[in-house]
Amino acid sequence: MQFQTLVSDSKSLSGNIGVMFADDELIISAIIKILKQTNAHVTLYGIKDPTELIRSFNIDGDFLNRIHLRTFEDKENVYKKCADDLTNSSIDVLMKGNVSSAEILSFILQHKSFIDENNFLNHVACFEIPSYHKMLMISDVALNILPSIDDRIKMIKNIESFSKGIGYNHLNIGLLSSVEKPTNKIPSSIDAAEISMHFSDDSFVSVEGPFGFDNAIDKESAIEKGLESDIAGNLDALIVPYLDVGNTLYKSLTYFAHAKVASLILGATFPVILTSRSDTIENKVNSAILALRTLL
Amino acid sequence: MQFQTLVSDSKSLSGNIGVMFADDELIISAIIKILKQTNAHVTLYGIKDPTELIRSFNIDGDFLNRIHLRTFEDKENVYKKCADDLTNSSIDVLMKGNVSSAEILSFILQHKSFIDENNFLNHVACFEIPSYHKMLMISDVALNILPSIDDRIKMIKNIESFSKGIGYNHLNIGLLSSVEKPTNKIPSSIDAAEISMHFSDDSFVSVEGPFGFDNAIDKESAIEKGLESDIAGNLDALIVPYLDVGNTLYKSLTYFAHAKVASLILGATFPVILTSRSDTIENKVNSAILALRTLL
Repeated sequence: MQFQTLVSDSKSLSGNIGVMFADDELIISAIIKILKQTNAHVTLYGIKDPTELIRSFNIDGDFLNRIHLRTFEDKENVYKKCADDLTNSSIDVLMKGNVSSAEILSFILQHKSFIDENNFLNHVACFEIPSYHKMLMISDVALNILPSIDDRIKMIKNIESFSKGIGYNHLNIGLLSSVEKPTNKIPSSIDAAEISMHFSDDSFVSVEGPFGFDNAIDKESAIEKGLESDIAGNLDALIVPYLDVGNTLYKSLTYFAHAKVASLILGATFPVILTSRSDTIENKVNSAILALRTLL
Repeated sequence: MQFQTLVSDSKSLSGNIGVMFADDELIISAIIKILKQTNAHVTLYGIKDPTELIRSFNIDGDFLNRIHLRTFEDKENVYKKCADDLTNSSIDVLMKGNVSSAEILSFILQHKSFIDENNFLNHVACFEIPSYHKMLMISDVALNILPSIDDRIKMIKNIESFSKGIGYNHLNIGLLSSVEKPTNKIPSSIDAAEISMHFSDDSFVSVEGPFGFDNAIDKESAIEKGLESDIAGNLDALIVPYLDVGNTLYKSLTYFAHAKVASLILGATFPVILTSRSDTIENKVNSAILALRTLL
């Protein structure tokens, strides 16, 4: 699948995005772009009334009609109302505004009914990298620090459901290491063999590894190395062994390889948009479009 | 310092590069480019006589005169002669040809006199990244898998000597993690605080960390995060916590960010060029030029 396919034709996308604490210019600016590019509604939960801030953007009445305000006196009531609205499906997507990621995650984890049967949350970043021939998902670049083998199996299951939801028929998943052959000296290479074995009977995903990053994304380099793999150089998703690897890769791709990205937290019963302040507005908007697409 | 400064004006560079097992087209092709771009000599140690292979390149006599052959019947004598020539300084640089990195490293480690007083070998990759304003050294991307805190201190010392040798007066060194503030949950962030403390009295290096990759290489993102650091966004060298991080970063920069690179093994009493088959010829040549520059 191409990244462009996911973020194009967004006009017809609908749903209600609940934004927690939408009280700064950056997040309102992203929300207005989301309203312009989709047919979605947004419900803003917070303590400060964002009416003046929204008016300062001078937008048409049609857009204003799709913004709903839920303003309360204290945080407790903000979270309570938002939890109720997620439970009764008045909102379909949760989006982080001017609040820490830790606080939003803790809000989700406090409600057992918000976590799906897989019982594991992970972040997935979907990249359009100029020199790669299709969209590349990478996990985990933001949430899980030292995921165990079992965690990474659950991570793959979350990516599997997510990918089915956005229209994939099959997924090539690579397990990243520094080498292509398991060696006891490099733990990530040994883990890869165990993780891939777990999916040997799964027809939706082909899970292989260990891969060095070059062999994961470049077929020629895999051939040069004599790597026998059907999916080398043609991955849809890459599972990194530690957060330090994923986080560095994410930042090197966005800063130095001019990659576009959209990202979500998977594993909740609803998609969660948890972009950070340093993410571009385009990134936030694309993440929202991706979230709405999972609702189709 | 700029990468270009290091690999330009190479015509005047001299020295004798000893190449282990220079018996394939790729390595001979790199050697001929090195002869053309510098004033160095090369001594080729091996079992197969490479004369015919060299002739097939049809090069001028001037270049042929700077190639010296040391061909033996068995590997043992190849290594023995090469060790003698390194000991008596007939050759100044060791370069890997058609042989595994592990074999060359084991050859070095077998000779105590080949390891400098710091007693630690590490790989340093010197990058020219199109969107970064100066050369960025990254270590370790190829050799040390899970370097301890002490190993990373020695790594920095090796980079310090190397940098002095190629003309630096000061070095900004960042310790990479996923976050900018030490947290017990992320081991690399805690290590960073300990490692940087070790260099607090060193006037040649400013060692700080932990850094996320964005704050390490982009001043604006560091300011946005409110990071108080004199060197954020302006690093000369980046120390990664694990090989998996460095190796992935190396490959993402060369494959997707169109970075040029030259790399060496530091910590021996002579520079070691240990590029891999998948490295480009330009990379091999630039690494040789870098090695010769350390001899000045």
